[in-house]
Amino acid sequence: MENKFDLIVLGGGPGGYNAAERAAHGGLKTLVIEERELGGVCLNEGCIPTKTLLYSAKILDYANHGEKYGVTTTGAKIDHAKVVERKNKVVKTLVSGVAAKMKGAGVTVARGTGVITGKSADGFTVKCGDDVYSGSKLLICTGSEAVVPPIPGLRESVGTGFAVTNREVLDLKELPTRVVVIGGGVIGLEMASYFNSVGVDVTVIEMLDKIAGPTDAEISKILQNNYAKRGVKFILGAKVTEVTGDRKNGAVKYEKDGKTESVPCDLILVSTGRRPRSAGIGLETVGVLTERAAIKTDERGRTSVPGIWAAGDVNGKIMLAHTAYREGEVAVSDMLGIADRVDYRSIPSVIYTNPEVGSVGETLDSAKATGIDAEEHTLSLRYSGRYVAENEGGDGIVKIVVGKEHKNVLGVHMIGSYASEIIYGAAMMVAREMRVSDVRRLVFPHPSVCEAIREAMFQIN
Amino acid sequence: MENKFDLIVLGGGPGGYNAAERAAHGGLKTLVIEERELGGVCLNEGCIPTKTLLYSAKILDYANHGEKYGVTTTGAKIDHAKVVERKNKVVKTLVSGVAAKMKGAGVTVARGTGVITGKSADGFTVKCGDDVYSGSKLLICTGSEAVVPPIPGLRESVGTGFAVTNREVLDLKELPTRVVVIGGGVIGLEMASYFNSVGVDVTVIEMLDKIAGPTDAEISKILQNNYAKRGVKFILGAKVTEVTGDRKNGAVKYEKDGKTESVPCDLILVSTGRRPRSAGIGLETVGVLTERAAIKTDERGRTSVPGIWAAGDVNGKIMLAHTAYREGEVAVSDMLGIADRVDYRSIPSVIYTNPEVGSVGETLDSAKATGIDAEEHTLSLRYSGRYVAENEGGDGIVKIVVGKEHKNVLGVHMIGSYASEIIYGAAMMVAREMRVSDVRRLVFPHPSVCEAIREAMFQIN
Repeated sequence: MENKFDLIVLGGGPGGYNAAERAAHGGLKTLVIEERELGGVCLNEGCIPTKTLLYSAKILDYANHGEKYGVTTTGAKIDHAKVVERKNKVVKTLVSGVAAKMKGAGVTVARGTGVITGKSADGFTVKCGDDVYSGSKLLICTGSEAVVPPIPGLRESVGTGFAVTNREVLDLKELPTRVVVIGGGVIGLEMASYFNSVGVDVTVIEMLDKIAGPTDAEISKILQNNYAKRGVKFILGAKVTEVTGDRKNGAVKYEKDGKTESVPCDLILVSTGRRPRSAGIGLETVGVLTERAAIKTDERGRTSVPGIWAAGDVNGKIMLAHTAYREGEVAVSDMLGIADRVDYRSIPSVIYTNPEVGSVGETLDSAKATGIDAEEHTLSLRYSGRYVAENEGGDGIVKIVVGKEHKNVLGVHMIGSYASEIIYGAAMMVAREMRVSDVRRLVFPHPSVCEAIREAMFQIN
Repeated sequence: MENKFDLIVLGGGPGGYNAAERAAHGGLKTLVIEERELGGVCLNEGCIPTKTLLYSAKILDYANHGEKYGVTTTGAKIDHAKVVERKNKVVKTLVSGVAAKMKGAGVTVARGTGVITGKSADGFTVKCGDDVYSGSKLLICTGSEAVVPPIPGLRESVGTGFAVTNREVLDLKELPTRVVVIGGGVIGLEMASYFNSVGVDVTVIEMLDKIAGPTDAEISKILQNNYAKRGVKFILGAKVTEVTGDRKNGAVKYEKDGKTESVPCDLILVSTGRRPRSAGIGLETVGVLTERAAIKTDERGRTSVPGIWAAGDVNGKIMLAHTAYREGEVAVSDMLGIADRVDYRSIPSVIYTNPEVGSVGETLDSAKATGIDAEEHTLSLRYSGRYVAENEGGDGIVKIVVGKEHKNVLGVHMIGSYASEIIYGAAMMVAREMRVSDVRRLVFPHPSVCEAIREAMFQIN
C-alpha cells in the first residue's frame, strides 16, 4: 500500500468525508482515517437515526390524530423494535453510500484511530494501528462526544444503562415507561418528542429558564407549550443534584427555587452538551493549540500549525453537521489556494420536533447584544392558506429580524410545518445580504407555508 | 356611500385582493368589486380546497402504508363528507381573513358584477348592481374559468352532474366508484391523487403523450410511474370523442392509435384548461384590447388603455395564483410611479401530488427551444439522508439546468417530498442570477431534502 498522501483527514464524519471528496476532486491524493463508522456521529448516532425515529412517530401521530381531518383509525401501534431495525437499515444504506462516494472520488479509507506522531521530509506522519502514513497536509475532523456532567450517581448510571446519551438511546431494545431528559436542547427535545409520541411519560429538566438553547425566546415558548399540551413536563431553571437507584426504582433529584424534588423514572437521557474530541490524537506532538479541548482555528480552518487545518465539532464553534461540511470545504479551498470563507452569520439550524423550528441569523436579542440596530416583525403562519389547511389549531409564527437603517434581512426564525426545509432560503437571504424590498419582488409558490416569509416582508415599512 | 375612488379593482381573487391591499397601503383609495366570494377561484374552488382534501388523503395514506415505518393500524377510514365539511370551514376561515385584510387596509368591498360603462371627468365609471362608481384607475383581475371542450355529450353531462369541473368536484357529497379525468394537467392530477388515495378507481385520459403539461419530461414520467403503481390508469396520446350515458351507466369514448375504446365510469372530471374571463365587463366600451379572451398587457400590467391595468389569469399568461399576486403588485407599483416588473423567468410552479413536483425556470428542452446554450445535471434525492429516512423505495430526483458559459442557474426541477416548500429558494437562485459557485458557498441545513440542490451543484464542473 502506498502510504504517502497529499492530505490525511482524521475522522470520517460529515466534516471529514465531505472534505475528502472535495479534496480528491480538487486533485489531492487523500486518505481518511476513521475509527468507528464512516458518517460519524451525525449519520450513525445523531441526525439521521433521530430523523428515522421521528418520521415513524409522525406517522403514528397522524394515525392517532387524523380525526380532525376526517380520517379515523383503530388500533394504531408502533413497534419500537421494528423502528430501531429500520433505523439500522437506513444508517447502513447511507454509510455504504459514503463508502461508495469515497471510492468513486478515489479517496483511500483506513480504519482505526489516527494519531499524529511527528513530521518528516514527506510531511506529517500519522500512525493508524500498525500502519504509518505521511501527508503533506492534515485536516482534523475528529468531532465531539457527549458530556456526562459530574452529577452524583450519573456516571455510574451510564454504566448500568439506567442513563444513556444520544448514542445508546437510539438502540434501546424496549421503550421505557418514564424517562427524564436532562438538558432541554435540540437532542433532548427531539428524543422527548419521539418518546412522547410513542406513549412514554417524559419530563425534561433544564438548567436555564427556557428550552431550545439560543432559539428565539418566543419560539421556544411556543414549542414548549405545544409539548406541554401533549403531556411533556418541563422543569426549567432547575439543577439536577443526584441520580439514585436503577432502571427498576430510579429517580432524578433536582433543586429548583431552593427546594429539592425528585422525579421517578426508568430511563435518563443525558443531553447536556458536547465536547470536542481532541485528546489522544497527537496534537501536542506537533503543537496544535487547543482551548478547552477545542482546536483553535481561523475562518479558513487553519490551526496554529501551518499545514494543519481543522473543521467541524472539534473546533468547538457551531456543532452542526452542515457547519462541518462547509468548514471542511473552506479548509480544502484554502489548501488549493482558492479564496473562501465560512459565513457564520448565515448558518441555519433546525429542531425536528413537531412543530419544527428553523432559524438563521440574528434574533432581536442577539442583535441587541452585539450592538446591531435591528427590529423584528412577526407574522402568524395562519396567514398561509396551506398552513391553515394542514394545521388545525396551529400556532406557528415566522419572525423577521432586519437592520433598522437598510432594512436588510439579518435573521429569520420560524416554528411550524416544513420549517426544516424552508429555512435554507432564508439563509440565502441573510448570506446574500438581501433587503426587504428584494424579497418582496421574488415570487413564492402559492399555497405554501414559505410564502409567510414573503408576506412578513410587507409588514415592514 | 362615497363613490369616487383612486382605484377600482374588478375581481377579488389573489390578483385583485392582494393588489388592493398594496394599493391602499400605497395611499390609493381603493374599491374591490367581487361577484362571488373574496379569494376567487384559488381560495374557493382551487388551490386551497384541493390542498385541504389532499392533506386528509395524505393522512389516510400514512395510516394505510405505515407498516414499512413500523407503524400499523387496523381499519383506517376516510369520511369524505367530513373532509368536504372541513374544507368548507377552512375556506370560510380564509375568506373571512381576506375580508379582514381588506377592512384593515381600508379597502372598500362591493358585491356584484362590475361592468365598465365609460369614462367621465372623475375617471372610469363602473356599474355594480344599482351602484355606479368612478375610479381614476382600473385594475382588471377577473380571472379565468374552466373550459368545457365541445365533445359530443360532454356539455349535457355537465348539466346532469355526470361531468364536473374543478368547481363542482370539490363539493361532491359522495365519492364516485370510477372516475375518468379528462386532461392530465395539474388540476386533473391533484384530483386523481385524491380519488386514488380514498379508493376510487381512476383513469386519466390525456391528449399529449405525457402528463403534467410543461413539466420536465423525466419528472412527468416518474410521477406517472408512481401513480401507475398505485393503480391509476393513464391513457396518453388519446382524444376523447364522446361521452355517453349518465352517472348510472356512463362511459367516455376515446380514440387512440386509430382505434376507439370506451371507459365506463360514474363521474367525469373535465380539466382540459382554463379561459380568461373577460366577457361581459364592458372592456369593449373603453377599448381594452383582448386576444382570444386574454387582455393584452405589457410587463407592467398596462392594457391598451392608459389608466387601465390587468393582472392574473385574465391576461392569459401564467395562470397561477402567485403570478397574479405579483402581477397585481407590479401594476400597483406602476400606478404609484415605482419602477417594477414581473420576472417571468423565476416563477415557480408546484403539483401537490404525492410525491410533490416543484419546478422553476428553464428545462433543458425549453432552453434548447429558445436557443439558450444549457446543460442539465440530475441527482437522486437518495443522496439526502432525510429523504432515505422518510421515503422507503423513493425515486425522487432533482435536476439543475445551468447556462454552459457562466454556469448560472437557469432552472431547478424536482420530484419528491417537500418539493412544494423547497422550490422558492431555487426560484431565488434563478431570479438573482446566481452561479453554481454561489450556491456551493451557501449553507443548507442537514439533514434535509433541500440540500440535494446544493450537492447537485457539486456535480457540475
